[in-house]
Amino acid sequence: MAAYVQDAIMLFGDSITQGSWEPGKDGFGARLSHVYARKLDVINRGYSGYNTDWAIPIFEKSFATRDQQKYAPKVRLLVIWFGANDACIKPSPQHVPLPKFISNLKHIVNLVQSPKSEYYSPDTRIILVTPPPINTIQRKEDLESRTPPLALDRVFETTQLYAEAVKDVGREEQVPVTDIWTKMWDAAGKAEANLSQYMYDGLHLNKAGYELMYDALMETIREHCGELDPDKVAYVFPTWQNVAGLPEV
Amino acid sequence: MAAYVQDAIMLFGDSITQGSWEPGKDGFGARLSHVYARKLDVINRGYSGYNTDWAIPIFEKSFATRDQQKYAPKVRLLVIWFGANDACIKPSPQHVPLPKFISNLKHIVNLVQSPKSEYYSPDTRIILVTPPPINTIQRKEDLESRTPPLALDRVFETTQLYAEAVKDVGREEQVPVTDIWTKMWDAAGKAEANLSQYMYDGLHLNKAGYELMYDALMETIREHCGELDPDKVAYVFPTWQNVAGLPEV
Repeated sequence: MAAYVQDAIMLFGDSITQGSWEPGKDGFGARLSHVYARKLDVINRGYSGYNTDWAIPIFEKSFATRDQQKYAPKVRLLVIWFGANDACIKPSPQHVPLPKFISNLKHIVNLVQSPKSEYYSPDTRIILVTPPPINTIQRKEDLESRTPPLALDRVFETTQLYAEAVKDVGREEQVPVTDIWTKMWDAAGKAEANLSQYMYDGLHLNKAGYELMYDALMETIREHCGELDPDKVAYVFPTWQNVAGLPEV
Repeated sequence: MAAYVQDAIMLFGDSITQGSWEPGKDGFGARLSHVYARKLDVINRGYSGYNTDWAIPIFEKSFATRDQQKYAPKVRLLVIWFGANDACIKPSPQHVPLPKFISNLKHIVNLVQSPKSEYYSPDTRIILVTPPPINTIQRKEDLESRTPPLALDRVFETTQLYAEAVKDVGREEQVPVTDIWTKMWDAAGKAEANLSQYMYDGLHLNKAGYELMYDALMETIREHCGELDPDKVAYVFPTWQNVAGLPEV
């Protein structure tokens, strides 16, 4: 069994989180694993296709209750990244109405931050992430190529509303937000077709998209959770030079 | 805090393990994280520069004792990869004499496998890995380019002996071995200069080297720990289609 020696970063989200260790992509999960090696474990709690309605029961199993906390690795940072599936349009079974999406996000934040919650964890910093913009041109092409062909399930403007909602929740709950929606939209020169530089199917990120995400997240960490800047988190165990009694290089 | 929801794979080794999530390399750590997503957490316990003498006390902190095991994620697979530093030649402070390297490896295996051990964990499968061959041409070049220049600290034949020793320990302890030394040496056509296809400094792996390692490790898993074949390990939480009551795709 793995003893508790390192605190953790938990990435909680959908397929864009789950797939962020995929070969060839240098996803933000893999890159965090690299920069926090020997400092913090990075835990993948990404669930492809999940919306916030389905994710809450998973969260309640994945985050330790007060009783479990003394035995469990402390989550120093919780990155919550949903919206891409909640913003599916009706009649998609993944659709969650905007007010419910907002209350779900607040609920997750409060599970961790409310002193009354069974999951209360004052040592956990939270960062919310906006869903990336939808490239309906790519998405339509992808869905139409399937057997049988599928109708468009996400539209640009709806996902934009869900991204705005994440920012509102951040402001109301005083939780920092990595606004990848805006970063990506700006980087694409606010032209939907150009989003293909950052995504391969109009929804999921390619290598360049993950690079944008990683850089944006690190910016949020340095600005709002400075103590978690990887340069400021110490190794749990000493360097070999230290063990050998040699000067550090 | 992160509750115990997924069992784990622990990668215990030196810099070649620690660096196996590095961007651009698709290292075996990152690739295991990807294929076991939602199945098993992959824990990086790689310590740059460490030999087995220094690693044992770390292991005794990182692996749960019997008392801790009921609260800790079960380690279903422990990959032990040392030798690259133990095989340093004298007067390197990293050098561990061959008989001590052998007894250290056996000690770690026995900590997990002996019913008398405080760390006894019958649910943990172990795979030993041989150190990769040394490309002394590259290594000498790298060390001579430093300020001040350093003398060659590893030689081909010595590391080969340590790789052979890992295989001997595997046979004696009946633990499967991923023999990356032989895989890489064969892939290089048994010509030291050709090893530069798989390593960037004569010691550490590049992308092609890690691909060789990942493939070799998966071969060992499928052959000796079939129940841990990623295709046979189920998701901990259901797919979204399952949650939504839809047929699986």
